[in-house]
Amino acid sequence: MIVVFKEQTPKNEIEKFEAKMKELGVELHESQGSKYFILGLVGDTSNIDPSRIQSNRNVEKLVFVQEPYKKANRMFKPEDTVIDVEGRKIGKGFFNVIAGPCSVETEEQVVGIAKSVKKSGASFLRGGAFKPRTSPYSFQGLGEKGLEFLITAKKETGLPIVSELMSPQQVEKYADKIDIVQIGARNMQNFDLLKVVGQINKPILLKRGMSATIEDLLMAAEYIMSRGNDNIILCERGIRSFQKVTRNVLDLSAIPVIKKKSHLPVIVDPSHASGLWWLVEPMAKAAVAAGADGVMVEVHNDPDNALCDGQQSIKPQRFDNLMNILKKYIEIENRQLS
Amino acid sequence: MIVVFKEQTPKNEIEKFEAKMKELGVELHESQGSKYFILGLVGDTSNIDPSRIQSNRNVEKLVFVQEPYKKANRMFKPEDTVIDVEGRKIGKGFFNVIAGPCSVETEEQVVGIAKSVKKSGASFLRGGAFKPRTSPYSFQGLGEKGLEFLITAKKETGLPIVSELMSPQQVEKYADKIDIVQIGARNMQNFDLLKVVGQINKPILLKRGMSATIEDLLMAAEYIMSRGNDNIILCERGIRSFQKVTRNVLDLSAIPVIKKKSHLPVIVDPSHASGLWWLVEPMAKAAVAAGADGVMVEVHNDPDNALCDGQQSIKPQRFDNLMNILKKYIEIENRQLS
Amino acid sequence: MIVVFKEQTPKNEIEKFEAKMKELGVELHESQGSKYFILGLVGDTSNIDPSRIQSNRNVEKLVFVQEPYKKANRMFKPEDTVIDVEGRKIGKGFFNVIAGPCSVETEEQVVGIAKSVKKSGASFLRGGAFKPRTSPYSFQGLGEKGLEFLITAKKETGLPIVSELMSPQQVEKYADKIDIVQIGARNMQNFDLLKVVGQINKPILLKRGMSATIEDLLMAAEYIMSRGNDNIILCERGIRSFQKVTRNVLDLSAIPVIKKKSHLPVIVDPSHASGLWWLVEPMAKAAVAAGADGVMVEVHNDPDNALCDGQQSIKPQRFDNLMNILKKYIEIENRQLS
Amino acid sequence: MIVVFKEQTPKNEIEKFEAKMKELGVELHESQGSKYFILGLVGDTSNIDPSRIQSNRNVEKLVFVQEPYKKANRMFKPEDTVIDVEGRKIGKGFFNVIAGPCSVETEEQVVGIAKSVKKSGASFLRGGAFKPRTSPYSFQGLGEKGLEFLITAKKETGLPIVSELMSPQQVEKYADKIDIVQIGARNMQNFDLLKVVGQINKPILLKRGMSATIEDLLMAAEYIMSRGNDNIILCERGIRSFQKVTRNVLDLSAIPVIKKKSHLPVIVDPSHASGLWWLVEPMAKAAVAAGADGVMVEVHNDPDNALCDGQQSIKPQRFDNLMNILKKYIEIENRQLS
Repeated sequence: MIVVFKEQTPKNEIEKFEAKMKELGVELHESQGSKYFILGLVGDTSNIDPSRIQSNRNVEKLVFVQEPYKKANRMFKPEDTVIDVEGRKIGKGFFNVIAGPCSVETEEQVVGIAKSVKKSGASFLRGGAFKPRTSPYSFQGLGEKGLEFLITAKKETGLPIVSELMSPQQVEKYADKIDIVQIGARNMQNFDLLKVVGQINKPILLKRGMSATIEDLLMAAEYIMSRGNDNIILCERGIRSFQKVTRNVLDLSAIPVIKKKSHLPVIVDPSHASGLWWLVEPMAKAAVAAGADGVMVEVHNDPDNALCDGQQSIKPQRFDNLMNILKKYIEIENRQLS
Repeated sequence: MIVVFKEQTPKNEIEKFEAKMKELGVELHESQGSKYFILGLVGDTSNIDPSRIQSNRNVEKLVFVQEPYKKANRMFKPEDTVIDVEGRKIGKGFFNVIAGPCSVETEEQVVGIAKSVKKSGASFLRGGAFKPRTSPYSFQGLGEKGLEFLITAKKETGLPIVSELMSPQQVEKYADKIDIVQIGARNMQNFDLLKVVGQINKPILLKRGMSATIEDLLMAAEYIMSRGNDNIILCERGIRSFQKVTRNVLDLSAIPVIKKKSHLPVIVDPSHASGLWWLVEPMAKAAVAAGADGVMVEVHNDPDNALCDGQQSIKPQRFDNLMNILKKYIEIENRQLS
Repeated sequence: MIVVFKEQTPKNEIEKFEAKMKELGVELHESQGSKYFILGLVGDTSNIDPSRIQSNRNVEKLVFVQEPYKKANRMFKPEDTVIDVEGRKIGKGFFNVIAGPCSVETEEQVVGIAKSVKKSGASFLRGGAFKPRTSPYSFQGLGEKGLEFLITAKKETGLPIVSELMSPQQVEKYADKIDIVQIGARNMQNFDLLKVVGQINKPILLKRGMSATIEDLLMAAEYIMSRGNDNIILCERGIRSFQKVTRNVLDLSAIPVIKKKSHLPVIVDPSHASGLWWLVEPMAKAAVAAGADGVMVEVHNDPDNALCDGQQSIKPQRFDNLMNILKKYIEIENRQLS
Repeated sequence: MIVVFKEQTPKNEIEKFEAKMKELGVELHESQGSKYFILGLVGDTSNIDPSRIQSNRNVEKLVFVQEPYKKANRMFKPEDTVIDVEGRKIGKGFFNVIAGPCSVETEEQVVGIAKSVKKSGASFLRGGAFKPRTSPYSFQGLGEKGLEFLITAKKETGLPIVSELMSPQQVEKYADKIDIVQIGARNMQNFDLLKVVGQINKPILLKRGMSATIEDLLMAAEYIMSRGNDNIILCERGIRSFQKVTRNVLDLSAIPVIKKKSHLPVIVDPSHASGLWWLVEPMAKAAVAAGADGVMVEVHNDPDNALCDGQQSIKPQRFDNLMNILKKYIEIENRQLS
């Protein structure tokens, strides 16, 4: 960390600050500029809460040299994390396609879609049982029954299940029924939920919040990892902007940026990012090209009558076409379909 | 609602759609444009989930005429909501100042600050016991003990307590100890939490999420109200933008906009919005001028050594000055200090 | 257009409004909702200035059914625009790579880079002679001399030149020396400049402004087209957001969205979007995958010592690698390298 | 400036860099961190183009200690700038209200409005003769004739004129007819225009661009000042965000932030910021409270039929009420109405 002091900071104030820092075990490097006094904090700064430096009225600026996350940081673990879910590998050269309906509606629906996407090449089945809906008057998901239908679909297809859980209680009660627990964008900084999923033995699919910086996302991952669960898959799903046509703006540059800063796998959700079914294909292809480790796509047998997000869902036939195109991209990128 | 169909939508598709809508009990008004067929849905459209219309592949556009919230909507309850907390009134001409430290650190600290801000004219004491921190390595609050210290401070000053709860379990366990339960910006769309606080008998201070539109905020309030709790205070605390100097951009126009659309009281948190103590005073004054029903200000006896957010906290003496200035504004605005 | 009137708008006010609209030659369709009166304006609404409807105090909402641009609108010209520049075709199945230094520094530099990028497969040479720099103290470009060096490079390689002009005077004086006139992001709504380039006989490369919606971009194109110049290439180059790692957020979904709404070719500038050289390759690939008609890449022989934007420039050798990878993507996408 | 080098940067690369910096006349302070080598550049760094440091592939991070603007910087000119326009003072304790129609329509209209706003207490007349409109099909202003009408209004009322000019040619031709030349938000980084108004002897009203940071705004002011014109009034008029109700988000915290960083006066345009007439009053009051040196308000005698921006214009009677309220705020703030 680099601390820039305000002009005319009294010498004794700087000394007081320096003494405090020395206690925390860091080495100090002083620089006197023409206007400012600058202090470099060298060593393990990870235990210094930045807000406690910024609160000092003499501090003009605090500059981070190292990122504030440790376990998620590639600097401290250079090799890619590979997550194994029932033999399917995620990360480092493997490419996964997670497909399924926004929300589970009936057993017949989800089993049918599961069979279909499996045939096309999907490696995981997604389906919402507990749905975070903007309106309290919208369909909130089938809940536990939805999970049962997903389990039936898994039995019939072998596809492991990705499904969202929204509260600590749900995690305690239902995490065992799911293969990858999804934490939704709106819950990315639901810290109590992060702490709880940090203590379970299931991979976590952590979606980027709508206004989360990449650092925010990696700090959310750090919350989970700091509790002992290292199996995290990050998911870019679009960020809020002034743009009006698409629901969010898919930030594909986040993929190479995250890959540089972290060893965790990153996938892309083109369905939620755009909110429009006809953008799923170009954005899924672009995600592969940008280096994603997978995509998560909403597939529905009858989007016109879907209980949720029909406008961003594609039909099984279109998904099959998409898979055929994606395979070419995956090949060029030297990835292996999981 | 107004539904615009794509050019060349087959007539039978429109008829199918119309039949579905008639079943939902709305009246239909047809308009044939030069390029588009337009259908007006007239009557009670509140039970029609918009995503189920947008998912229809023939629909080009869906336009809302009425807002999607009902209980929070001024159209259906024109008079201002006034919330009474131990005799202090919030909303409709009353102005409240909620003050206190970001996080409770010691009994001595919080009692001292409480006495001081009470003397200056604050009507509520704020203090964090459970803290949503971006880093898992930062101070997470004193928890239950923090609440005990707040209760002591209330006993000594009579100031009712505003404090954040972060999970359904915390609400069940601790809501009784608090006078106004705060839902933080990061939890504004933690729907499971909203549902739980919708069932308790305590006023809720609902902070706007960093990337929440005003409609999102009012829909979050609707979640709570739809479960039976109508005592909601909305709080503008800044939204994310490209701006770099302040942590967020305080959106003061949200106040008159919310007042127009809803009957709920709205307060402003200038401390979190800017993240800088020297912006608290001008932004608090501007909040009164923009029509806010109150402000929430972080006050700390020793910001340089605060365990959290010291850089945005002001000292008791500065708070006292602020109150003296605010009183003049409150008077011009014909508000009454609660 | 659909006009929604406020509740309780007096009947005679609506009649006055209707009379005015009839004069403008549109047909009227009335709908009486439970709360609102709705008027559909049917026919050629393109000459109705929307702000003159919104200014009516009785109007609650104005909804556009048709887009406000005409000449740029695919609805009125369904087939793709193809632009021919000295035999090189842009748009509709052709893929162009525009490469060169951010700013022209010396004849030797620009000729050297031109030869190199031509060999690798670029179809146009880019180079800044007039530079829009954020600071008045930064290098502002070589001006006229820079153009001369570009012309020399063209003579030696045959590559047509893309270069930015920043004012009406520069267009009058220098447009003849350039093959494609670039309008920079900061000038996207410099309407006087747009009008002037609308009257010249050169293709225009119009960059999207940092906070421009897609409609704003197409309206800027419409400015040029309304003056008679239909040869416009649109360029996505990133939009402003709260994100901090990259300079802007590349909005790749803009490509399929623009392709749907307009017949104009769209290219992508991954260098300016990210501001970081190591993001150029993944974002260029993603641009092809998303359907772009070309990319514009900054190439510099010695980025470490470039007079401008060295941190986002790649070296000729890296550009050569990039071209080899892009060719595979271009092939999959059934595009033809121009 | 503080330069952080990448891990494992070869020693000779750092030495090369240091030699280059020494040539530029700055002193060097070295710090070896546990992972990074850090170099402090001390002295006059204002002539070092940051992009030339960032382009160095060994540089991990460049941190600015001083702001990149000089003439606009309060550090180098601590006292407030006061601008005198025909005896009316702007800045440092003086408060100015600039009022008038969005665009000049007829002589009668503008003279009538001028008389009315003068009576209510406005100190300047605003009116657009050259209008930057998003659509080429919208009314573009009366041009020169509009300026003549403004001059007539000035003759009849004594109110000096504020009007926008949009190109270097317009400045050359018309600046003499205007008292304060407005540079619009869309032209804030039209650098050729900034250079030209830097050479005239008229105060400049510089509006903040829709996606401009405060640093961007002050750098635009620096462009003008670097050419010799120090009389600049900055204007906050809202920034782009995801918010949908208002056209832009008025960033009132920009006022105290700019006041801290610069000595230039700052005013607020509540009409353009919100785009809604009923938000003008609360936002104008909030602007005074936040410390603005003035407000610019659109006033129209017949907003329903205004040729431009009627929905954000208020009528003379409402303006009169607004002035009466603002006067109370101005008094509390110890400002003097100019």
